[in-house]
Amino acid sequence: MTRSKFQSGLDELKEQLTEMSIAAERSIELAVEAYLSRDQRLAEEVFRLERQTNSFQREIDQLGIDLLAMQQPMAVDLRFITACLKINADLERVSDQAVNAAQCAMAELNLPKLERSVDMARMATTTAGMVRRALDSFINADAQLANAVLIMDDVVDRINREIFISMTSLIRSNSQLVDQALGAILVARNLERVADHATNIAEDVIFWVNGKDVRHGATQGAIRDVV
Amino acid sequence: MTRSKFQSGLDELKEQLTEMSIAAERSIELAVEAYLSRDQRLAEEVFRLERQTNSFQREIDQLGIDLLAMQQPMAVDLRFITACLKINADLERVSDQAVNAAQCAMAELNLPKLERSVDMARMATTTAGMVRRALDSFINADAQLANAVLIMDDVVDRINREIFISMTSLIRSNSQLVDQALGAILVARNLERVADHATNIAEDVIFWVNGKDVRHGATQGAIRDVV
Repeated sequence: MTRSKFQSGLDELKEQLTEMSIAAERSIELAVEAYLSRDQRLAEEVFRLERQTNSFQREIDQLGIDLLAMQQPMAVDLRFITACLKINADLERVSDQAVNAAQCAMAELNLPKLERSVDMARMATTTAGMVRRALDSFINADAQLANAVLIMDDVVDRINREIFISMTSLIRSNSQLVDQALGAILVARNLERVADHATNIAEDVIFWVNGKDVRHGATQGAIRDVV
Repeated sequence: MTRSKFQSGLDELKEQLTEMSIAAERSIELAVEAYLSRDQRLAEEVFRLERQTNSFQREIDQLGIDLLAMQQPMAVDLRFITACLKINADLERVSDQAVNAAQCAMAELNLPKLERSVDMARMATTTAGMVRRALDSFINADAQLANAVLIMDDVVDRINREIFISMTSLIRSNSQLVDQALGAILVARNLERVADHATNIAEDVIFWVNGKDVRHGATQGAIRDVV
């Protein structure tokens, strides 16, 4: 395999991962829209998108392994390819979380909406924005943008806790609303997991760009140069 | 790097992943024991184990990438190393789920236990067994054992649904038990996620052993030989 063919393989890998990310992000937005507006068609669109991201995942894995097999990659390419494989797994799980949220939407199609407002729309926007920024930081090798994703994760965690507290108190005052309140708690947890995956991606980007491992607070301790 | 040095690197990778898996499995058992017996010390042991698995994760990633960088791996070794990196990410998330369950345990230290029995102990045993079997199937390159893990996942999903139904009905009949009932739902979901990670590992093993991608029902459609 010539270097230029290898290079075009890397470009294709990046392109496929971008498309997968767009599909995963869209599925999150659709799932929460389906949930908030009680719209079955939107939920079904999420299930359709998941089949698409599953195909992407297989193709990306295959392409990454082919690239590792066909040419002794240089250190920077090696980090790029292994980051792609990990980001791929995260995006597939983002899509799974969207499916879970869409299933919650389906379960509530015929239930009245909760009157108490929860900050789900903002949580969804923030979370989808994290996925988008995480991938942008990857495409542009922008460690600073990746760092911004880590900070947004705190916002999502806070909204998740607020929804949990608000919904448990609602159940206490009216246990007949348990299904809707639990639905809100579970959808919020799906979004919180999506935010965790975006955070994983951002950490991989920082690892890839800087060649340093920032996971689990390693920056405070032994930063190790990689490769 | 000589072939024999490369081989001993592969052995070390396998050994570290085994230790990580043992720690992750143990943390699941401890978390549920902490939850069921309201034992703070056990929960704290889970938090300690998580720091250990985080260190393992960094070391395993590093070792895998070093091996990919230092020698053009043969196809079978390449599949093994990329499988290790993915299994590593799954085990780290198993450990995260154990931490979440231990946090639920901490939140309930002073709450009376639920009288209604839920099948949490059996769910924990089954789930930990899935993690153990998934790793055994990896160590022994045993695709049949990996297939057994996929089947166990159905059992865990069923118990999870039963707990959900039982606990929502409990809340409806006595909304003052909402905290405990929600705790049971959330711990059950943690275990269900662990089972999903064990399933991911089993799928990676099948991929690695057979060179075929069984994820997302690909066996029914286009089985593709890998590398």
